[in-house]
Amino acid sequence: MTHFNEGTIQFEGAGSKNPLAFKYYQADEKINGKTMAEWMRFSVAYWHTFTADGTDPFGAPTMVRSWDRFSGMDLAKARVEAAFEFFEKLGVPYFCFHDVDVAPEGSTLKESFKNFDEITDMIESYMKTSDTKLLWNTANLFTHPRYVHGGATTNNADVFAYAAAQVKKGLDTAKRLGAENYVFWGGREGYETLLNTDMKLEMDNMARFFHMALDYAKEIGYSGQFLIEPKPKEPTKHQYDFDVATSLSFLQKYDLADHFKFNIEANHATLAGHTFEHELRLARINGMLGSVDANQGDTLLGWDTDEFPTDLYAATLAMVEIFQNGGLGSGGLNFDAKVRRASFAQEDLLEAHIAGMDSFAIGAKVAAKLIEDRVFDGVIENRYKSFTEGVGLDIVNGKADLKSLEQYALSLDEIRNESGRQERLKGILNQYLLETLSQVRV
Amino acid sequence: MTHFNEGTIQFEGAGSKNPLAFKYYQADEKINGKTMAEWMRFSVAYWHTFTADGTDPFGAPTMVRSWDRFSGMDLAKARVEAAFEFFEKLGVPYFCFHDVDVAPEGSTLKESFKNFDEITDMIESYMKTSDTKLLWNTANLFTHPRYVHGGATTNNADVFAYAAAQVKKGLDTAKRLGAENYVFWGGREGYETLLNTDMKLEMDNMARFFHMALDYAKEIGYSGQFLIEPKPKEPTKHQYDFDVATSLSFLQKYDLADHFKFNIEANHATLAGHTFEHELRLARINGMLGSVDANQGDTLLGWDTDEFPTDLYAATLAMVEIFQNGGLGSGGLNFDAKVRRASFAQEDLLEAHIAGMDSFAIGAKVAAKLIEDRVFDGVIENRYKSFTEGVGLDIVNGKADLKSLEQYALSLDEIRNESGRQERLKGILNQYLLETLSQVRV
Amino acid sequence: MTHFNEGTIQFEGAGSKNPLAFKYYQADEKINGKTMAEWMRFSVAYWHTFTADGTDPFGAPTMVRSWDRFSGMDLAKARVEAAFEFFEKLGVPYFCFHDVDVAPEGSTLKESFKNFDEITDMIESYMKTSDTKLLWNTANLFTHPRYVHGGATTNNADVFAYAAAQVKKGLDTAKRLGAENYVFWGGREGYETLLNTDMKLEMDNMARFFHMALDYAKEIGYSGQFLIEPKPKEPTKHQYDFDVATSLSFLQKYDLADHFKFNIEANHATLAGHTFEHELRLARINGMLGSVDANQGDTLLGWDTDEFPTDLYAATLAMVEIFQNGGLGSGGLNFDAKVRRASFAQEDLLEAHIAGMDSFAIGAKVAAKLIEDRVFDGVIENRYKSFTEGVGLDIVNGKADLKSLEQYALSLDEIRNESGRQERLKGILNQYLLETLSQVRV
Amino acid sequence: MTHFNEGTIQFEGAGSKNPLAFKYYQADEKINGKTMAEWMRFSVAYWHTFTADGTDPFGAPTMVRSWDRFSGMDLAKARVEAAFEFFEKLGVPYFCFHDVDVAPEGSTLKESFKNFDEITDMIESYMKTSDTKLLWNTANLFTHPRYVHGGATTNNADVFAYAAAQVKKGLDTAKRLGAENYVFWGGREGYETLLNTDMKLEMDNMARFFHMALDYAKEIGYSGQFLIEPKPKEPTKHQYDFDVATSLSFLQKYDLADHFKFNIEANHATLAGHTFEHELRLARINGMLGSVDANQGDTLLGWDTDEFPTDLYAATLAMVEIFQNGGLGSGGLNFDAKVRRASFAQEDLLEAHIAGMDSFAIGAKVAAKLIEDRVFDGVIENRYKSFTEGVGLDIVNGKADLKSLEQYALSLDEIRNESGRQERLKGILNQYLLETLSQVRV
Repeated sequence: MTHFNEGTIQFEGAGSKNPLAFKYYQADEKINGKTMAEWMRFSVAYWHTFTADGTDPFGAPTMVRSWDRFSGMDLAKARVEAAFEFFEKLGVPYFCFHDVDVAPEGSTLKESFKNFDEITDMIESYMKTSDTKLLWNTANLFTHPRYVHGGATTNNADVFAYAAAQVKKGLDTAKRLGAENYVFWGGREGYETLLNTDMKLEMDNMARFFHMALDYAKEIGYSGQFLIEPKPKEPTKHQYDFDVATSLSFLQKYDLADHFKFNIEANHATLAGHTFEHELRLARINGMLGSVDANQGDTLLGWDTDEFPTDLYAATLAMVEIFQNGGLGSGGLNFDAKVRRASFAQEDLLEAHIAGMDSFAIGAKVAAKLIEDRVFDGVIENRYKSFTEGVGLDIVNGKADLKSLEQYALSLDEIRNESGRQERLKGILNQYLLETLSQVRV
Repeated sequence: MTHFNEGTIQFEGAGSKNPLAFKYYQADEKINGKTMAEWMRFSVAYWHTFTADGTDPFGAPTMVRSWDRFSGMDLAKARVEAAFEFFEKLGVPYFCFHDVDVAPEGSTLKESFKNFDEITDMIESYMKTSDTKLLWNTANLFTHPRYVHGGATTNNADVFAYAAAQVKKGLDTAKRLGAENYVFWGGREGYETLLNTDMKLEMDNMARFFHMALDYAKEIGYSGQFLIEPKPKEPTKHQYDFDVATSLSFLQKYDLADHFKFNIEANHATLAGHTFEHELRLARINGMLGSVDANQGDTLLGWDTDEFPTDLYAATLAMVEIFQNGGLGSGGLNFDAKVRRASFAQEDLLEAHIAGMDSFAIGAKVAAKLIEDRVFDGVIENRYKSFTEGVGLDIVNGKADLKSLEQYALSLDEIRNESGRQERLKGILNQYLLETLSQVRV
Repeated sequence: MTHFNEGTIQFEGAGSKNPLAFKYYQADEKINGKTMAEWMRFSVAYWHTFTADGTDPFGAPTMVRSWDRFSGMDLAKARVEAAFEFFEKLGVPYFCFHDVDVAPEGSTLKESFKNFDEITDMIESYMKTSDTKLLWNTANLFTHPRYVHGGATTNNADVFAYAAAQVKKGLDTAKRLGAENYVFWGGREGYETLLNTDMKLEMDNMARFFHMALDYAKEIGYSGQFLIEPKPKEPTKHQYDFDVATSLSFLQKYDLADHFKFNIEANHATLAGHTFEHELRLARINGMLGSVDANQGDTLLGWDTDEFPTDLYAATLAMVEIFQNGGLGSGGLNFDAKVRRASFAQEDLLEAHIAGMDSFAIGAKVAAKLIEDRVFDGVIENRYKSFTEGVGLDIVNGKADLKSLEQYALSLDEIRNESGRQERLKGILNQYLLETLSQVRV
Repeated sequence: MTHFNEGTIQFEGAGSKNPLAFKYYQADEKINGKTMAEWMRFSVAYWHTFTADGTDPFGAPTMVRSWDRFSGMDLAKARVEAAFEFFEKLGVPYFCFHDVDVAPEGSTLKESFKNFDEITDMIESYMKTSDTKLLWNTANLFTHPRYVHGGATTNNADVFAYAAAQVKKGLDTAKRLGAENYVFWGGREGYETLLNTDMKLEMDNMARFFHMALDYAKEIGYSGQFLIEPKPKEPTKHQYDFDVATSLSFLQKYDLADHFKFNIEANHATLAGHTFEHELRLARINGMLGSVDANQGDTLLGWDTDEFPTDLYAATLAMVEIFQNGGLGSGGLNFDAKVRRASFAQEDLLEAHIAGMDSFAIGAKVAAKLIEDRVFDGVIENRYKSFTEGVGLDIVNGKADLKSLEQYALSLDEIRNESGRQERLKGILNQYLLETLSQVRV
């Protein structure tokens, strides 16, 4: 009925001479005992790739899509068909969606559920013969005007109830389709102005909402990992899931920390003033690195640009964290990324994903070599060795107190530090970036 | 020996025709049953006012100070003398200092302690006849090159011990001088690059450091409030006490949350991407609003400008939070603010403090009127009323779950929201700002 | 047919007890010999107030508008009717529009022109009996997908031609409706990535485009002021009219500077890293302050929030520049501002404009008093007096050179500067803000 | 007397196994017919490498330098000795300095001149036997407190005269030492607050200052290129040389554009909201790309971090602009970069420069290959081809006007654009980055 490329896309796959065919990503190539596919678990974001139309705050749709000749439920079905064709062409093992990405909302909740179920049936059917699985699904609690003041943090109890119903359906669907995770991104869970906001009630309600979701998942036996996706702002002035640390403080306060991990997005990290690797590291050392929204932002722009990830430094440092984490568990690298509004041709979708997958493949190879050679681990081990002996070991073991340390400090001659050698480390990183692939190939 | 104004400052006090004499702050004027002095508990920051010299990253000292003809311990003593003269002229009830602000470091820790004790003696003596008390003191663990890689989060155990010794002395001094709080600001507690950083060990060590401080305070019977002062970055690339939420996640994780409150700085809030009132609100609803560093930043500049607070919107919204908190308890409004490098005359110090105190006095009056008239409280009460009845009350009381809410949502007709009316609220805020003082005066 | 308020808006006008009725703006009140209406020349932005629907990048329309029951040309006509009712209720002397705000685009350029002409007829007819005139109109060269790569700076000559046709029609319409200015805002005149951009050709073409417009205006005898509206970015990565200085460099290079002035938007100023008053000042001292888009941004957010202007500091400092400029000439204060997405009720439109007009009325009164008392002028006159005598006068008069100045400098003893006293000036500004209106009223 | 490395630095030079020896930079290797040394013309910044001590706004000096055992003029001389040893070890062809970097200021201008001349004698003598030449020198008009309110834009005519004297001496010295350029960076040429600033007089005076400098250079027959180095802010709130476009508007207005080019700093570009390559491109297409301050900033931090340039994307795109410019003429790549405060060892200085030089060497090779293969040029040529024929050619040739274009546009069917393909281009850039060096080596 619909075909993704309709004969117009010259997509030749790995090994082709087309510069934007895969050059670095090989699903079956092994790194550290697992295949690239197993380590990276790439996922396509349904909303950006099959639903988005190129609208921006100052512009109308630009995207040229073969399925746009349909409308309503026919359009929804054409998208499913195109999606599975796309997944296969690209060879990605996962996809992700919000409820409203895959099926149009009806005029009532009942009708919305009916539409959604019908498309879920179709997706379930396609999944039976596809190698592509559902990384996670979620409920969109931010687009519809009913969510203008929030979903779980609305001031309107009816809206809270409506949001709860959407999440219930989302969890039912997650179980049915075998979603390995269930995600919460709270695009409207925040405030526009404190002048009219009861912050405490809103945060309490958000916690109640999460507890209800956990209870229901337990009740139906859904065992996927719950994930929170932090973002500091946009669309709201301030969002409660500002960043990993903020979300962690919330989860701890409301006794939710054991049940959630984080879905970390690169662009959300930079909007919050952090590097991507910072957010990954902070989640990792707290045992909460769950999944990744693999995109990149433009740090000279102040909004979520959701670009496809091509920065090889970011990809390398992200893969270092992921390897150190022992992989992403049930998570994956989901391309929460959109082609630029001016990249409106259908082949841009393929080329953008290839650019992203190749970038992470390069990052993985470089990261693996850096770890194998203990480049940064060695530096760190040596740098902190004073805490493995003497007074440092006492500190770590809880045998020191202010008085004993004062006595020790009074006895010290001049304290000597070593240089942090950041410039050297950056030079070495460049060398690994440039040399690893040549070595691998030889 | 030294005189603050040496006869050159025309400081005429409240009621004068000099435009920069107090026009709005009256220590004894009552608002809501307490005096302005009791509500605001203003404090002078020793470092900015008596120690700083106007240096910036591209410029040499500019400040012209009557005590600069002295050096070494004589300079330290001249500053104490000037400080208490200044406190008296200004009529401020509190001051704050770091150890190295008041006394020069010696060539050994022992000598540093000796210098510090000698100045502490002098301060203690002055305090006996002064109305000005110590709001808080703290240890500077960031200026000296030994702290180049951090204090509590250094990679060098000797440095950790040295820092511990400084804090021990700080707590001893806090007890001796009756400091109502003890502050931790971790200017070097963070990292420059993750490439050489063991983030987990550093944060674990920071927690160990805080526990040691708590244990020692208990041992010596020091009962002042412990405060953490969040700041996201500068001097380091990333600081562990990024903002209130981040610090809260840390305190919760390491079982420290019951023993700390926050010292919130306006400029640190904006550097972290938050409004001042956001940080105050978040601390308040967690019962952790301890004290305030009253300054302001320039949101078009990316560094800590530490300007004297003159923005009446910020002052008003801050005072709303402080009133809603029932005051600041043992905390106060500390002017962690510096005169501009180009405001190098000694009278600028007085005028800047007056501008700041008057601004908060105005803010207090406007805030009190806003609260009295229930301007925002009324809006909020009305806005969230759906959670005080019916399904909303069930949600709040834990009687709802996803299934019951789904049933409810399926039964709903169209959901109706009310406008958030932000523009109206801002217009009303302007009216209160302009009208309150006229009303008060009539 | 349509009614703006349909009996539901309690808009009571000046003097009412409704807090959001006018309290400070009185069209006929005189300041410095002219009425407020004459100084400020307020204007309503058609797009934000009658066309916009509350969509944001993550959300669907929210606005509740009485005219939304219509569609197509009927909707366009209902908006005109509502607009003139709104103008009258508000008492604003001006409005502004883009071509596509007032009439829907057709499927061909010819049809678009037909629609536009039909609505222009209607507007012209309404204007005959209305006190509201057209401040400026403009052509929207950014929303339609044809402009995805730019209008005047597109890579596609057909698009350039299409844009030229729209501007021709815009100028014809400006002449017909008596628009006092014609504006260019180049939302797509910039680039997304330099990798595919011929910056020189694009800027050359933009200059060609402006020259064609000037030639055509001359040909048809349209004598309104041409205005460029700088904006640094959004929707594009980089826009060629980045800020006043950038646009000035462009106008100078291409021999256009005599024919253009600037339409300065507050939020665009802050996005470019400048204060609003900086952009006004820079335009003013170059004789190019033409008009103002009166709104405000949120400096903690990185996109164009286009909020209604309620910041009294910004309004006061803007009015200082406008008074110093002798007024805005043919320009005005156009509310290029939108109610928040959550302020979706129709009365929010009125209250938002009232809040904005009152804010500028306050700003005007405070600014007039500051100028009358020579508060800042006196400081500046005194501060720079060294350039009115001796060596300073020689410098200004061109009588000094490096050699004569070296001789002078070698003869100097220590150079003495005076404090810049910024804190004092900010304190005085607060006093004028709070005291001016009380004085005026007594 | 002093030795740069005193036997402790393991600096082994090109070909060594030490990872931070040169791996990619070979001074004599040819690219496009010129050697790397000729294309890149690397330069060491005297201030960061020999004078700076690691001070930051919250920290005392950390740098460990072999010459720090000296003081006063002896220190100045030891630095010269170390500098020329460093230049030779590194094999850099150029260096740059401010007057106050090389010699201490005296208590009078006369004494300052005497000190400066004495060191200039020494430098001149060293240059006779060194391969390292002076890329540019400049006068520091920002550090001393006399410049607190500006140099050329001060409110104090005595200060203007003093600044003029420094520049005269700077030009005399430039001529004497054969400086190929003379630079102006106006760190205090701006304002802290508009409340006390006469912006017009300040900018007029800045123009007068530049004209005096041009006149004097002509008088003494100094023919080096005059350069302006834009920076938007820091240390001041706003600097008049905000960015390339702003400075260009100034130069045009004051009839100075024929006599100046730009010295473009990467970190200043990002502080102004631009990419490095944007500023290079804008200068290039205006024929004003003079020289480069090769460093990098941290876009998540809001101040000038002046890091050594290791970002290979930035280095590659910069070299594309430089090649397209036909090289830098009399300019060069000056490392206006400082080792991190925590990189305080002397060997960090060498390793940081090596990392920077290697990064640009890689960038040069990749850029040369991109240009040779017409990767981006081909895309651009094809993308804009509509302006080389038909209506597009008429537009470019000035044969079209609004009327002819309207007629043309009315005749058009649907306009068809091509995708901008940004993602593909970024993928190709990555491939060139990774493959070029392997290819070169095979």
